[in-house]
Amino acid sequence: MRFTIQRDKLVEGVQDVMKAVTSRTTIPILTGIKIVASDEGVALTGSDSDISIESFIPKNQGDEVIVEIKQPGAIVLQAKFFSEIVKKLPTDLVEIHVENHLQTVIRSGKSEFNINGLDADEYPHLPQIEEENAFKMPTDLLKAMVRQTVFAVSTSETRPILTGVNWQVENDSLTCIATDSHRLALRKAKIETEGNDQYNVVIPGKSLNELSKILDDQNDLIEIVITENQVLFKAENLLFFSRLLEGNYPDTSRLIPTESKTEVVVGTKEFLQAIDRASLLGEGKNNVVKFSTIDGDFVEISSNSPEIGKVVEEIPSQTKDGEDLKISFSAKFMMDALKTLEGPEIKVNFTGAMRPFIIRPLNDDSILQLILPVRTY
Amino acid sequence: MRFTIQRDKLVEGVQDVMKAVTSRTTIPILTGIKIVASDEGVALTGSDSDISIESFIPKNQGDEVIVEIKQPGAIVLQAKFFSEIVKKLPTDLVEIHVENHLQTVIRSGKSEFNINGLDADEYPHLPQIEEENAFKMPTDLLKAMVRQTVFAVSTSETRPILTGVNWQVENDSLTCIATDSHRLALRKAKIETEGNDQYNVVIPGKSLNELSKILDDQNDLIEIVITENQVLFKAENLLFFSRLLEGNYPDTSRLIPTESKTEVVVGTKEFLQAIDRASLLGEGKNNVVKFSTIDGDFVEISSNSPEIGKVVEEIPSQTKDGEDLKISFSAKFMMDALKTLEGPEIKVNFTGAMRPFIIRPLNDDSILQLILPVRTY
Repeated sequence: MRFTIQRDKLVEGVQDVMKAVTSRTTIPILTGIKIVASDEGVALTGSDSDISIESFIPKNQGDEVIVEIKQPGAIVLQAKFFSEIVKKLPTDLVEIHVENHLQTVIRSGKSEFNINGLDADEYPHLPQIEEENAFKMPTDLLKAMVRQTVFAVSTSETRPILTGVNWQVENDSLTCIATDSHRLALRKAKIETEGNDQYNVVIPGKSLNELSKILDDQNDLIEIVITENQVLFKAENLLFFSRLLEGNYPDTSRLIPTESKTEVVVGTKEFLQAIDRASLLGEGKNNVVKFSTIDGDFVEISSNSPEIGKVVEEIPSQTKDGEDLKISFSAKFMMDALKTLEGPEIKVNFTGAMRPFIIRPLNDDSILQLILPVRTY
Repeated sequence: MRFTIQRDKLVEGVQDVMKAVTSRTTIPILTGIKIVASDEGVALTGSDSDISIESFIPKNQGDEVIVEIKQPGAIVLQAKFFSEIVKKLPTDLVEIHVENHLQTVIRSGKSEFNINGLDADEYPHLPQIEEENAFKMPTDLLKAMVRQTVFAVSTSETRPILTGVNWQVENDSLTCIATDSHRLALRKAKIETEGNDQYNVVIPGKSLNELSKILDDQNDLIEIVITENQVLFKAENLLFFSRLLEGNYPDTSRLIPTESKTEVVVGTKEFLQAIDRASLLGEGKNNVVKFSTIDGDFVEISSNSPEIGKVVEEIPSQTKDGEDLKISFSAKFMMDALKTLEGPEIKVNFTGAMRPFIIRPLNDDSILQLILPVRTY
């Protein structure tokens, strides 16, 4: 194997596939990055066996030559060292050359690295996925849907299925749901499918977080292929594979109240900031704060930490319908939820102090955040 | 005590004095910030008993009213909570009001905090310092001298005196020296003294680091007062006290070689970057790399990590005089030293593979970095 490549493109590709590489693996070769030089360009692969990422660097981009292949071939290089080395190379052009016995020379300007490689034939194969039934959506919509749901997955392995986000595809619509059984996030959107595909799968939260970091915020379409135990995201020159979680996701539809006894409309930013202030003196590790309807066009946010002190704040509410209410909840959960909501105003629907309540942007039913209250009153 | 104050000025002052506050103190009241409202303005104080910082917020700045004192007085508030609270207050104006029993109300817009205060009379007094013999220097010069020496102090408590920087004042000149016994940093500069002051003290490295963080990079003069066991830095509206380290600083002048057997001049940036690359495959925790003079107008930097691989690089040297040399040293120490040197070129003087060597900017004797080699050849 021998090729020259533009350093910046190599650095970019390596950074992408590094997202899948971990030093805590039981398969030693997965601490490396696989490099394959073919007549079309250079493919880089990183994997922790749950997530696998392939970044392809084509020979040319428009009129510009990115890679010049002198001899096709393949090698695996220690990811930690290789990624640091390429970042620090002195010149814009890098030559990579495998000599005898997997010895690999990385040359840039007057700098010459000699690295011990590993046999690329021993690197696990990526999942083989039939791409018949892909559906498509804009990349920025995908990123938004991930951001608006993934924060609510469980971080505990007690119920492993809850560490993933439930993706339901039906009638040209994708619904993403995450819950850690104390709160729930739900986001819906229209997608482009071929035929009337139906899926109900659970994608690990960690995979979606890593995917989000790699994708640029632009509206190019990304292709998504779902199989029995894998999901593949296909962007330009990038393949992102994740295994799916096994097991049935709980039916969350019964959790979501359909009636409302108290409805409040408040400014998103004012509400978020007041919760943030009250959280400073909130109780327990989730910083529990209190919310109550009061006389006039206001609601009250308060908290009390016996040793430190207390805080009370009124914020204006545009609408306030139904029964009076005092309720306590985790300030952290509320702030997490509010940060996912766009638009200047939000609507909160309660069905009593001990029942889950719902937060939505005003006039937008595509997203819903649900929080279970905490018993303090 | 009762006053209103501009939130931004309060936040600034609190952030400055927080640099001295630690939660790991054996004196409970020092987890608080002392607030004193007088007819002139508001003074904030934070201290960990080694470092004490007073930030003064005057009533007026030019024509602008910053503080309005309604009733003078004093209180101590929990630093961790108070600093978070002021940062998050909703409006530009804050009222602070001590009611009965040290209960303190912090009011901003519709937000009202009620915090349990502590008795300001129980807060330790700041050191009383006679300001007869102050010397002066520009703030940015002080910051440069700290940055160019403090990194070399020892982090081990085996010889506590080496965790500080030695400051010597004599003949209108200040010399700062730091060493951890494997390397040494020395920086000299002219200062303004009143009379012919002479001092030889050791200031804790931690104090100088915190001082640097608070001071702005500008050339206003800062006053420095040294007493038997304290140093006071006086900037506008800011007092920074630090205790001095007790004991005698070792005489480092004998450590610094006066002769040179090999002299090399190289580009600062090229040298730093080559060392940085070689450090990737350097041995041991200090990433030991090798330096050797080679034929032609080059020197060679190399390193070798048996498991991973090796790197060799040549960099051009403008001058190369004296004996040929192979020497090994810590890449970390060399990079730390090079980062403090200004100017495009540096001069390195060696007196043999096992003797300390000196790095200086070309044509600038005000700064010197010394490194002890490592035995590998």
